[in-house]
Amino acid sequence: MQRLFEAARGVAKALQDQHEYLVFAESCTGGLAAASMTGVPKISAHFCGSAVVYREPTKNEWLSVPAEVLARFSAESAETTECLSRSVLQKTSEATVAAAVTGHLGPDAPVNDGVVYFSVARLNSPDAEVESIAHEVQLQTTGRIERQQEATAELLEFLLRTLASS
Amino acid sequence: MQRLFEAARGVAKALQDQHEYLVFAESCTGGLAAASMTGVPKISAHFCGSAVVYREPTKNEWLSVPAEVLARFSAESAETTECLSRSVLQKTSEATVAAAVTGHLGPDAPVNDGVVYFSVARLNSPDAEVESIAHEVQLQTTGRIERQQEATAELLEFLLRTLASS
Repeated sequence: MQRLFEAARGVAKALQDQHEYLVFAESCTGGLAAASMTGVPKISAHFCGSAVVYREPTKNEWLSVPAEVLARFSAESAETTECLSRSVLQKTSEATVAAAVTGHLGPDAPVNDGVVYFSVARLNSPDAEVESIAHEVQLQTTGRIERQQEATAELLEFLLRTLASS
Repeated sequence: MQRLFEAARGVAKALQDQHEYLVFAESCTGGLAAASMTGVPKISAHFCGSAVVYREPTKNEWLSVPAEVLARFSAESAETTECLSRSVLQKTSEATVAAAVTGHLGPDAPVNDGVVYFSVARLNSPDAEVESIAHEVQLQTTGRIERQQEATAELLEFLLRTLASS
């Protein structure tokens, strides 16, 4: 958990320094990214919220992930994750950066056990086009809780690298 | 955290036994209720997701909490919490039960420091009218992380009592 809190504090500082507003779309991390961010004092000035879309109909209904994307690429895929990050950014007018995550936490998922997909979408000023950047990792831990924590730490660290590179 | 995991397992069993689908709207717990539920294996069969609406514009934009309710009663109030539970239930067509939470985790909130508001909304079969039930507690802990955990445990335990009484 220490790794999580450190990553969350780093993201909070970057948001503050860069005057950004963050929103998440979380599937396999199940809200832990949001819970980690909201452990940081005064984060409500820069953290809009998180759409925890755990079931496929919720992904479709809340964040308009097209049924054909879910059917063609699956709910856990780079393509679905990119849709989630772009959509949650679009549906949250204050937000300037969005991070999304999907993946197979398993254990013993039928395919790609322990593979997690990330996408960070940003408003590209001044023309307000959205750019997104993808990332994928094979988790090193086993066990549901450990993998949820590892996936969340990877998400926050990827987000922090993306914010730092801008 | 033990209290949290026990409450989450209890809620999961009740959902399974009663064939219910759960959705959350979380403010002050910041996603920790969803993260606790998704720590339970196979919960994806009964847990739709959570709208973590941390800022006022997100409450309004994602869950249509009227600006006049936010202005009149504040973002942390029984009235706003009831709006959140009813709205997230309505926006999630699979869901049969919704639980929402708002509150002043502080520490040192200007008013009602440590007071947390809960609302559980349910589809009242067979006529599909929505009934909601409210609850309010004064948290006993101090410190942001401890209060986030206590508020989440109180939410899950209130939800469990509501499910058990049906």
